[in-house]
Amino acid sequence: MLILAVLTRKNKFCQGFTRGSSSIFSPTNFLDQTQKKGLVMAVFGLVFSKLAMLVIAPDPLPFSKDTPAEIKEYMKIIAIFYYPVLYYPLLVCGTLQRKAGYAFGALLSFSHFGVLVWQKFDCPKTPEIYKYYALLASLPQLACLAYLCVQFPLLFIKGPNTDEDLDSSYYTDYVKSLLKKRLSTVSSSTTDKPTLAKRILEVVKSYFYLPEKVFRFPLQLAVSAFVAFVAIYHTALLLVVLVVPTLHIVRAGIDENIAFLLLGFGIILSDDRMEVVKIVTFYTWLLEVCYLCAMTLSCLVSLVMLMRSMVLHRSNLRGLYKGDIYNIYNSQKTICPSKPGVVCWMGLTGYQAAIVCFGMAIQTIVFFICFLFLVFLIIIPIFYGRNIIVFEIAGKAWPAWVTLILATVLQHVIAKFAFIKKEAGTRDLKNRESLFLLTYLLFLINTVVGLVVAIWRMVITALYNIIHLGRIDISLLHRTSESYDPAYRYYTHFLKVEVSQSHPVMKAFCGLLLDMMVECGRAGQKIQDAEEGIQENRPNKATSRRMIRARWQLLYTLVNNPSLLGSRKHFQTLHTSESVLNGTPNRSSKKGSKKEAAKPAAEPDQSTETPTNQDKTD
Amino acid sequence: MLILAVLTRKNKFCQGFTRGSSSIFSPTNFLDQTQKKGLVMAVFGLVFSKLAMLVIAPDPLPFSKDTPAEIKEYMKIIAIFYYPVLYYPLLVCGTLQRKAGYAFGALLSFSHFGVLVWQKFDCPKTPEIYKYYALLASLPQLACLAYLCVQFPLLFIKGPNTDEDLDSSYYTDYVKSLLKKRLSTVSSSTTDKPTLAKRILEVVKSYFYLPEKVFRFPLQLAVSAFVAFVAIYHTALLLVVLVVPTLHIVRAGIDENIAFLLLGFGIILSDDRMEVVKIVTFYTWLLEVCYLCAMTLSCLVSLVMLMRSMVLHRSNLRGLYKGDIYNIYNSQKTICPSKPGVVCWMGLTGYQAAIVCFGMAIQTIVFFICFLFLVFLIIIPIFYGRNIIVFEIAGKAWPAWVTLILATVLQHVIAKFAFIKKEAGTRDLKNRESLFLLTYLLFLINTVVGLVVAIWRMVITALYNIIHLGRIDISLLHRTSESYDPAYRYYTHFLKVEVSQSHPVMKAFCGLLLDMMVECGRAGQKIQDAEEGIQENRPNKATSRRMIRARWQLLYTLVNNPSLLGSRKHFQTLHTSESVLNGTPNRSSKKGSKKEAAKPAAEPDQSTETPTNQDKTD
Repeated sequence: MLILAVLTRKNKFCQGFTRGSSSIFSPTNFLDQTQKKGLVMAVFGLVFSKLAMLVIAPDPLPFSKDTPAEIKEYMKIIAIFYYPVLYYPLLVCGTLQRKAGYAFGALLSFSHFGVLVWQKFDCPKTPEIYKYYALLASLPQLACLAYLCVQFPLLFIKGPNTDEDLDSSYYTDYVKSLLKKRLSTVSSSTTDKPTLAKRILEVVKSYFYLPEKVFRFPLQLAVSAFVAFVAIYHTALLLVVLVVPTLHIVRAGIDENIAFLLLGFGIILSDDRMEVVKIVTFYTWLLEVCYLCAMTLSCLVSLVMLMRSMVLHRSNLRGLYKGDIYNIYNSQKTICPSKPGVVCWMGLTGYQAAIVCFGMAIQTIVFFICFLFLVFLIIIPIFYGRNIIVFEIAGKAWPAWVTLILATVLQHVIAKFAFIKKEAGTRDLKNRESLFLLTYLLFLINTVVGLVVAIWRMVITALYNIIHLGRIDISLLHRTSESYDPAYRYYTHFLKVEVSQSHPVMKAFCGLLLDMMVECGRAGQKIQDAEEGIQENRPNKATSRRMIRARWQLLYTLVNNPSLLGSRKHFQTLHTSESVLNGTPNRSSKKGSKKEAAKPAAEPDQSTETPTNQDKTD
Repeated sequence: MLILAVLTRKNKFCQGFTRGSSSIFSPTNFLDQTQKKGLVMAVFGLVFSKLAMLVIAPDPLPFSKDTPAEIKEYMKIIAIFYYPVLYYPLLVCGTLQRKAGYAFGALLSFSHFGVLVWQKFDCPKTPEIYKYYALLASLPQLACLAYLCVQFPLLFIKGPNTDEDLDSSYYTDYVKSLLKKRLSTVSSSTTDKPTLAKRILEVVKSYFYLPEKVFRFPLQLAVSAFVAFVAIYHTALLLVVLVVPTLHIVRAGIDENIAFLLLGFGIILSDDRMEVVKIVTFYTWLLEVCYLCAMTLSCLVSLVMLMRSMVLHRSNLRGLYKGDIYNIYNSQKTICPSKPGVVCWMGLTGYQAAIVCFGMAIQTIVFFICFLFLVFLIIIPIFYGRNIIVFEIAGKAWPAWVTLILATVLQHVIAKFAFIKKEAGTRDLKNRESLFLLTYLLFLINTVVGLVVAIWRMVITALYNIIHLGRIDISLLHRTSESYDPAYRYYTHFLKVEVSQSHPVMKAFCGLLLDMMVECGRAGQKIQDAEEGIQENRPNKATSRRMIRARWQLLYTLVNNPSLLGSRKHFQTLHTSESVLNGTPNRSSKKGSKKEAAKPAAEPDQSTETPTNQDKTD
């Protein structure tokens, strides 16, 4: 690290002002969308794996063997701060964009990888709950380290990437694709309504994330998605390891005494003791199967939801780039970084991982209970003729079911043929008297139907919320109270900061400005002249017209982006005189931003960032 | 009923065509907002009370004593259809708007009331679970019947109400208030932002339903609200009766044997057997207290939610009258009755009552569990020093809590002072390198914070959904899947039918039209002439100008309300010739309605019902 620090210091003096300065105190630029994301994702995955192993590790820190139980918790807290520091050099080596950094990185990752492989090869079994747990849990670490071992030498051979952030062609490509897209959407909207098969295909498609060339994920979200993926693996592993070996031990311990124990509770499964043992063993095996099915299902659900989240992240970001704030926040807000916004931006990766883990655990429990009901109350009765209690109840209550179904069908049929009249393309009510009569007479049976509806409502709400519990990008509450869902609030705050800091069109504009300033200093001078409104000496008409236009454009830009006001060269000197003439500019700019926020989304002249920036680019 | 039928038949011949015809086959006009709602609400409350008493009644039908258990279910199904028929005459007597009807109604309600009072006075105790259950459960019936006993004589004295539906001044008042309101809202929007105290007061106010003069509830919703209120009473009564007497019996049965029983499970509460009995008795008393508290809380929650629902019903209806469809459906839809719409409209009262009952039961269970946790894990340990397990765990884990709190506070403080820069009224990020560094280093601790967030998310989601389970007017699912919530879907369908059939502005217009037709037949003839476009013989300029204007207005009205096309006098005769000239009118009108539906809400010329109807009124 010291060598790297010296090297960076030397490097800084040679750098031009257009390059982003990278020091050893900045692990990576999280707001740059154009860089290679692999290295950062691998390091984050590595760090998270370490945390996941802390949960049931006997020794939280590597240098203390046989930690006593009373200081274990303190050790775990220290470990939470130790591991990010341990892998910090790996991240810095990748960020510095120097050959020396890549060489050190390769060396470091090879040594980490070597130590880990040697350790696992030397002692694959551990005295934890499940002997191969330590080996299985270190697989993601091995994968991440192996990736780093391949990447660093490759980067060393290729040399540092000169195409950094604002110089990158991504932003200009994005602007180009925006301008191109508009034509294609107009032509597609004129086509007919899609068929049912097409619509189903579209719903299925919307759950698969297919990368697009003209859109790159923000680094934070990419890291979050990868960490969430690692988290799903670790949670699944922990869920299996904590339960299945215990079930195995219980099953191995079942002997003839179980018959007496069950007799004590008044349960007689069979007269033959050996058969009782067989039945109980079979039941514990069923328990295990149910549990593993539930765990697999929750894994699959989490993976699908993760993919769906990525699709939604993309569409949300695109919507916000376009200024479509209402869709995400359900209210008009200004997009600028705030205090809670920065905190949420910092913590999003961690929150997402934790929420995915917790969601998976809850899902597994709920699915397990559902599978148990399914197996013990429906499948076993059908195949073995035991526990037929559900079928008995359903059989006894058939008159009620038949009445309910008949009443519902009757209402639907009558509604279709007796009460709706179609005339000239619109529908209206007819036979009102009979409608009122039926409404009254069927009131009580509809109340009973309502009970079924209420139960169905509870079941579907519970299932929906449990399935979506691991998703940070949708709120689980009603749309008027969305902001009370903590995870969703973090997500919206995060989006605000992300969009305000790395809007691709804004970055494209900044890149163009920098190019102009570097390449043609004279042109830059001209812009500055126009900006400052200095009267040029040549009094010919074309120049003055251009100048007037430039000043109006400047005014328009400043009105729509009051934040630029503070960055202007002579803001400080003009401050007092302007305040005398037009009122304080500070206040007026504040009012401007408030007015913007208050404008409804539908107004065409609303000044969201995109059109303004496009104007600038033009 | 037969006498009434004959009377109505005689009456029909004398009636003018403007009066709504009421027969004995129409219990009441559910789509008329101006009538007195008390009678209908009382009868519905009466019928629902009978259903609520069926749940644990030993004899579902009054004429079969000591019903055998095997035919009890069939009896209950028959009872569901029997009771609405039993109280049907009461409803009809109120609807017929005749003195004879009121006299019969008074007679009927007095006899019902007399029989019920005599029955309860003769035998207040019943052999059901709780001896006074039958008496308490019949209180709402007594109240409803007493109300009817007062109302029918009053109506008989006052005589039938001549001010029926379209003749009523309510609709014109509504239109007047609409036109008046606009001025007052303009003046109120210019005032400053409300203070915090004011805003809290407004939130509290939004939970209290205060009736307004210029808005009347639709009859269906009023009945639903009253039935829901009766349902809350009956559910609370059932919840108490089913549990508390059992707990009393258990408590009375506790003796010294309980100590041995507990010893069998390895639980030793005390060495002294009498003290064990005392402790167990105390615990069962606590159970009862917790249960009653939970039940009371769920009652209160249901009542508050019912009031809030009524406030929302009103604002939803007002919004739909104004054409503000997007707010309620979250998508653009045409407002016209459909097949499922009619079914939902018929069943809403029953659904609402059932959902309130079910919601209350679930709430009571959940609140009971919460109270148990509170009492047995927090209050008893504090006051008696037993079961201090929660405090022990919390005490052991204090380093973890302190770390989490410190990390969170640290991030908030640093975010405020180090990373946000305020300049010219807007905020921006500064110290990006340190921000990135902290983001990486605090990643793991943020993951742990995320776990707390995830638990909090689950708790708040569960509580929110359980509290709102009894409400039909909000969806419990995310806003993109709102229509999968069955109760909410019913509600939105209901609103569609209600608004399309009883829009006050439309009714005001219809009333004006009728007045014109009745009062000045000549004027009506003129309108008809203009409508049919017959060239009048007088060729003076003013008349032809007026006629041209009338024809344009007619065209505009027909384009915006294609449903009127089918009702026109010469639609049938013109049908063939028009189809030769302009294409089939059926098709063109269908296209028109589709175009209307596709128009976005923000367009000023969108043809929702209100503006069109206002035009007509003008």
